[in-house]
Amino acid sequence: MPSTATASPSQTDQASLARRFTRVRSQTDSLCRNLEPEDLMLQPVAEASPAKWHLAHTTWFFETFVLAAVQPSRTSCHPQFNFLFNSYYNSLGARLARHQRGLLSRPTAAEVRQHRAEIDAEMLNLLDGHSLDPATLDNLVLGLNHEQQHQELLVTDLKLGFSFNPLRPSIWPSADTNHEHTVTPCLDPNRWITIEAGLRQIGHDGNGFAFDNEGPRHRVYLDSFALADRPVTCGEYLNFIADEGYKRPELWLSDGWAAVSHNSWQAPLYWEPSADALGWSQFTVAGMKPVRPDDPVCHLSFYEADAYARWADARLPTEAEWETAVAEATLGEPGEFLESGRLHPSSADPGSSNSSPLALQSALGGVWEWTASPYIAYPGYRPAAGALGEYNGKFMCNQMVLRGGSCATPQSHLRPTYRNFFPPEARWQFSGLRLAHDL
Amino acid sequence: MPSTATASPSQTDQASLARRFTRVRSQTDSLCRNLEPEDLMLQPVAEASPAKWHLAHTTWFFETFVLAAVQPSRTSCHPQFNFLFNSYYNSLGARLARHQRGLLSRPTAAEVRQHRAEIDAEMLNLLDGHSLDPATLDNLVLGLNHEQQHQELLVTDLKLGFSFNPLRPSIWPSADTNHEHTVTPCLDPNRWITIEAGLRQIGHDGNGFAFDNEGPRHRVYLDSFALADRPVTCGEYLNFIADEGYKRPELWLSDGWAAVSHNSWQAPLYWEPSADALGWSQFTVAGMKPVRPDDPVCHLSFYEADAYARWADARLPTEAEWETAVAEATLGEPGEFLESGRLHPSSADPGSSNSSPLALQSALGGVWEWTASPYIAYPGYRPAAGALGEYNGKFMCNQMVLRGGSCATPQSHLRPTYRNFFPPEARWQFSGLRLAHDL
Amino acid sequence: MPSTATASPSQTDQASLARRFTRVRSQTDSLCRNLEPEDLMLQPVAEASPAKWHLAHTTWFFETFVLAAVQPSRTSCHPQFNFLFNSYYNSLGARLARHQRGLLSRPTAAEVRQHRAEIDAEMLNLLDGHSLDPATLDNLVLGLNHEQQHQELLVTDLKLGFSFNPLRPSIWPSADTNHEHTVTPCLDPNRWITIEAGLRQIGHDGNGFAFDNEGPRHRVYLDSFALADRPVTCGEYLNFIADEGYKRPELWLSDGWAAVSHNSWQAPLYWEPSADALGWSQFTVAGMKPVRPDDPVCHLSFYEADAYARWADARLPTEAEWETAVAEATLGEPGEFLESGRLHPSSADPGSSNSSPLALQSALGGVWEWTASPYIAYPGYRPAAGALGEYNGKFMCNQMVLRGGSCATPQSHLRPTYRNFFPPEARWQFSGLRLAHDL
Amino acid sequence: MPSTATASPSQTDQASLARRFTRVRSQTDSLCRNLEPEDLMLQPVAEASPAKWHLAHTTWFFETFVLAAVQPSRTSCHPQFNFLFNSYYNSLGARLARHQRGLLSRPTAAEVRQHRAEIDAEMLNLLDGHSLDPATLDNLVLGLNHEQQHQELLVTDLKLGFSFNPLRPSIWPSADTNHEHTVTPCLDPNRWITIEAGLRQIGHDGNGFAFDNEGPRHRVYLDSFALADRPVTCGEYLNFIADEGYKRPELWLSDGWAAVSHNSWQAPLYWEPSADALGWSQFTVAGMKPVRPDDPVCHLSFYEADAYARWADARLPTEAEWETAVAEATLGEPGEFLESGRLHPSSADPGSSNSSPLALQSALGGVWEWTASPYIAYPGYRPAAGALGEYNGKFMCNQMVLRGGSCATPQSHLRPTYRNFFPPEARWQFSGLRLAHDL
Repeated sequence: MPSTATASPSQTDQASLARRFTRVRSQTDSLCRNLEPEDLMLQPVAEASPAKWHLAHTTWFFETFVLAAVQPSRTSCHPQFNFLFNSYYNSLGARLARHQRGLLSRPTAAEVRQHRAEIDAEMLNLLDGHSLDPATLDNLVLGLNHEQQHQELLVTDLKLGFSFNPLRPSIWPSADTNHEHTVTPCLDPNRWITIEAGLRQIGHDGNGFAFDNEGPRHRVYLDSFALADRPVTCGEYLNFIADEGYKRPELWLSDGWAAVSHNSWQAPLYWEPSADALGWSQFTVAGMKPVRPDDPVCHLSFYEADAYARWADARLPTEAEWETAVAEATLGEPGEFLESGRLHPSSADPGSSNSSPLALQSALGGVWEWTASPYIAYPGYRPAAGALGEYNGKFMCNQMVLRGGSCATPQSHLRPTYRNFFPPEARWQFSGLRLAHDL
Repeated sequence: MPSTATASPSQTDQASLARRFTRVRSQTDSLCRNLEPEDLMLQPVAEASPAKWHLAHTTWFFETFVLAAVQPSRTSCHPQFNFLFNSYYNSLGARLARHQRGLLSRPTAAEVRQHRAEIDAEMLNLLDGHSLDPATLDNLVLGLNHEQQHQELLVTDLKLGFSFNPLRPSIWPSADTNHEHTVTPCLDPNRWITIEAGLRQIGHDGNGFAFDNEGPRHRVYLDSFALADRPVTCGEYLNFIADEGYKRPELWLSDGWAAVSHNSWQAPLYWEPSADALGWSQFTVAGMKPVRPDDPVCHLSFYEADAYARWADARLPTEAEWETAVAEATLGEPGEFLESGRLHPSSADPGSSNSSPLALQSALGGVWEWTASPYIAYPGYRPAAGALGEYNGKFMCNQMVLRGGSCATPQSHLRPTYRNFFPPEARWQFSGLRLAHDL
Repeated sequence: MPSTATASPSQTDQASLARRFTRVRSQTDSLCRNLEPEDLMLQPVAEASPAKWHLAHTTWFFETFVLAAVQPSRTSCHPQFNFLFNSYYNSLGARLARHQRGLLSRPTAAEVRQHRAEIDAEMLNLLDGHSLDPATLDNLVLGLNHEQQHQELLVTDLKLGFSFNPLRPSIWPSADTNHEHTVTPCLDPNRWITIEAGLRQIGHDGNGFAFDNEGPRHRVYLDSFALADRPVTCGEYLNFIADEGYKRPELWLSDGWAAVSHNSWQAPLYWEPSADALGWSQFTVAGMKPVRPDDPVCHLSFYEADAYARWADARLPTEAEWETAVAEATLGEPGEFLESGRLHPSSADPGSSNSSPLALQSALGGVWEWTASPYIAYPGYRPAAGALGEYNGKFMCNQMVLRGGSCATPQSHLRPTYRNFFPPEARWQFSGLRLAHDL
Repeated sequence: MPSTATASPSQTDQASLARRFTRVRSQTDSLCRNLEPEDLMLQPVAEASPAKWHLAHTTWFFETFVLAAVQPSRTSCHPQFNFLFNSYYNSLGARLARHQRGLLSRPTAAEVRQHRAEIDAEMLNLLDGHSLDPATLDNLVLGLNHEQQHQELLVTDLKLGFSFNPLRPSIWPSADTNHEHTVTPCLDPNRWITIEAGLRQIGHDGNGFAFDNEGPRHRVYLDSFALADRPVTCGEYLNFIADEGYKRPELWLSDGWAAVSHNSWQAPLYWEPSADALGWSQFTVAGMKPVRPDDPVCHLSFYEADAYARWADARLPTEAEWETAVAEATLGEPGEFLESGRLHPSSADPGSSNSSPLALQSALGGVWEWTASPYIAYPGYRPAAGALGEYNGKFMCNQMVLRGGSCATPQSHLRPTYRNFFPPEARWQFSGLRLAHDL
């Protein structure tokens, strides 16, 4: 899930970039540290990729868009990797059919890791000894963000892959690597944060990195609305199930009801009836665990999130509402992005007002929150030219926007303008919801 | 494609409603006048319905929501028709699987027509002798608009059904019934109508009938843009084909390219290579005809419209842009809706200006124009309660909005706020496009 | 389901052939007498054909293989019918995709019937005034047998088509047209007819008409076996259901179990749980009727027949066993074929013996009986050259042989060497079973 | 592809069985010696299994049917392996869906190998110190034959898995492990071996091991026929391709033509157009190699074999013809089975005669030869009771018999009564053909 950058690392010196490069690349390696070569082969569905593919594909990005771009005469030691680990960039040549990525036993995990190490060394050597032009540095920063996207996908794809194993393996049993362990429970009742009507601006302002689809920053008019101060919890979702939520077509979008019927959905993905207190256990990266009532409900499709909201006599927020509320409300859990100075309630925006003394809980991290917004271009959006530009624009159809980030999203990757997107039936991301309603 | 009304026929007297009822019902009958019983059985794809089903389903609407609502003790002479010709209204009981509508040889066409006549007589009797309450009159007006929607679907579904017959039958050979004959050619080069940035209002204002999804009227902020004064023509589209438009993945959305590959699309639906001047002929309701360069190009999917726009270095307009331009530009072909007084450039709208001396050609009628807007609810939209309310809201996912109406749309059904919607791969409606670009 | 003939109508004079032609053609017309034009359009599944197609296709056979063959300069009044109503005869030109036969609203039923009448007149004129060569007469006889095959298919395809209508229409309510009404109940317990081991001959001996796949007559060695004197009844089959027969994988072939699971089979086709005495009712050509315990069980797939036999600690007979038993045992219900003198226990066959005083009940007519034999060529079989020869040979894969004929088979079409064949999952023919076991 | 045994190892002492056990098990290990853990995960299609699954499933057989059977109180160190590596034996409990075997990253290859070693030690210990009853010894011998079946499947499944890798890896490059290297070329023109008509006996006679489906030995009557003395070669098959064999429907069975069209077959599996002398290269276990004209053509479906035979004005032999010819003709390459004394032309069989001085080439080993016989039970066949009996009987539908063995079949597993079977569209076995014709 790469993208075109609008990076502006003008003040970034190469030494700090090199350190960041090492940090991000190591983080990817560390996710795979305890995994077996066989684990890295798992491709449970066409939409998920094997971990080995993620490892190789993120490496391919740096080789292609940094190393090869800077050194036209450079020869690749594995030229065929270009074909094998390319993704959507049709303009760079043919690519392997997506659903067949799991059939690549060769190169082996060891070879892919070896290749990672070689490219890392080559990259650090380049950063150390050469003064790179801004476009190349932009590509490097883009590559790091691209790799962070794949870190999250690596986790979600692996979780799905392991879930088919009747042994119910525990991938990351220890607390320091178990992302799901870190999800903050929602102990208090939901409260509503109100936002007044008016013209707002949303979208990335160009300071710091963002993917191309986060801009241009632009005006939108919003009617007044209320947004829940926290996500919907498992305990609340259990009431929906108990109230026959999965059996009442009037609560569902037409396509959603078709998905419920076709897939026999009766609960979120990974939930299984059990003898636990709530009657349900769930598959996690640390094996089977009881469903806990105060956790944000997770692994929902858009259809389920939408049906739950209708059942609760509420609705999903639009992405403009969500982003506006994050900009205007006090955040309960200041994340790294606040420290960066990029985000703050802006008095320059027309109509802005911090309309609530309440804090917005768990907005960044925890679970991705489905919005009511289909994923389309912002006004004035133009894809970047060339190969990197192919990406984000071409998926602007049949997908819904999710906001906020999850327990599997790297901390430094969280930001309020980030637009994640998946088809409405997708459930294997860490996806939940937050309610909204009109005023 | 029925809907919930927000009709306000307060001043309408029942006599004029009765005349309108007769007019609309006769128009449906007249569409089927020359058709054989076998023709009325055709269901070429699951998404299309047999003409007989359209005839019966529109009748069912009046029987259920007017006659049965007014007379609770009334007994239906064909109670099972309620099950057979119900559509999406799950809350009223089970319904026949959509793709099996073509397997209803009984009731026969003659029986369905007889039933139409009986219900018509009963309706006219009711209107003549009883003073009906406003809610019932609203339902009646809704039923008439519902029937007009089905008149168009009856035409498009029949055209598709006949197209599979190697004999290439001519359904409506004579000029007065051949809708496609009436499409206005675009003889002049395209010119751009410019609209200034600003806050606008779109959506139906509540005067006169509209479907529930056309409201509430609400504010939107638009950046300045330009809209083509006429649709794209067959001649222009032939340039796209000649430039290998169907073979270049970089021009297509990802799902669009998958559709091109899967379906082997090489031209609009109904086009076939031929010895005609332009090298193509097309199946029409009057049989095979040469493709004419000045006709608006028609029977495109959203994907094709979007790819063409990208190839032309332009884009599709959003539905807000489209509706604003129609409201602000001079219309080349004033339709009935102008006479109703409902639509006129409104100086009360902020930012409104008739920014161009150019006239907007063929905006209403001709071909439906794909927009860049996914079909979602307007801010503040709430479905009506009860059975009629089920409809429009539940399709607000995975569909794109089309605007303007086609040659098959009844004249009195055309209005600038009308929101038609189909999945992005649908091609059997009379669907084309109009270009837009940023300023 | 046409075929290549090995007809030998040497002594048949043309006048008697003309009478037979009229009789067979009238019988087809009479099957459709009370049907509406819409009924003739029904194509419920790709494997079934609309009745109108059967009417036209059987006509096409005579036009192509008799009239056009005899009169090379003859011009067809409907040349396009050749394409529309051709079936498997690829060597005669392209043909309509099978599953799209239901999309032919034109020509109408009236036109197809008119065409039938014209061809009938032309045929009778030909037979009356011209002395035809033997090859042409053979084709004519083949065409009559071909038409009788389609008479049965017309009934089974229509029954399937009507069964999807929630109104449960009664196609042939009166006793004289309701084939199912004529099935003989099996009132007595099953008894076993024993056949001694030895060399036998099976296959058609060339006297009288047979399809090419019924020959050559050839030797087979049979071990001794026992064959049930009557088919399995509904009452017996209900015991299988009650004993969880549809839930025990060990009773089923692997592909059969997959079919049970995929299709959720729980009873024969057309059976529905009801308040009737036995708990089941069934859809018949005369509408819904109670399941009767003494009727032969019908509308089974091969998989169900095979599973029932395994459950009953028996097996299905091979087609050689079945044909041998019919040849050697006394038949309980002498049919027309016995009168013809074509079939009788032959003392010339080695090993032949009428090994049982018991009579074989319901062997010809009633229900088709699945055998254990895949449909393959007899030793020495060679398809006839040319277009007619294409047929039977090319289906000799993935099908199982059924023997004996059903209530829908024309009486004069019943003969002990007849080899019917359908895929093992097919259930819409009148198909049941008779048990066998080793000695 | 396990089976029920009719082993009779009465004179076999346990020490020699232990040596044989070690030999067979080592042979399996040796096939995987150079493979990476990732290679053992490959499951290219649902019908093929990962090599790791083959390794574990063959081990499971001995643990379940020997160790657990002998020692009821024994506890398994990996009880869950019973569920994971069970295959068709539904009566022993649930099993993993076949197409999901490739999603078992755990247990790892190392764990599965460790488990193999443990079970091997336990087995040898059992054989060394305990006197086992005949039924257990029968199961052990069955397990060895079962493992040899899986050795061949391991090769064919791996070859298919690797073939999807664009790197075209070479699995077994060296001559001593490359089975395909050992195929004997057919240098001479084809000659016909004639067999006289008469009663024969086929099927296993009970001396030595055979799978249950090879018996009972029984009489069949054969008309006289001729059988080719060698398989069809690649050079001959190229003539079929050059003569438009893949484009002429009249050469194909109906289902075969559908397979050609659906899959766009234009040559045997693994063939690719190339710049080699014959215009084709093929993927082999040693990487891409030129197609050689004298090699037996291989990797054909039954449909292709049948179409080729029809094109060559010949046919495929039945399995009874094939087995009779092998029994009566001099074999060009005496294999191990002849030394065993089990097979020799039997003067006791009626009609037997060594009717040809010609030798039958490559009948055992080389390529499996498709026959004209569907896979059904021999007369008198009864599956063994209990879990092991489930196997062979339940696949007796929709499959065709292949005879003779291939380059991937273990030498000691070749025997003339062996009945291999696959669906008619299967191409990933080493499958070719030998021609026959009537006399």
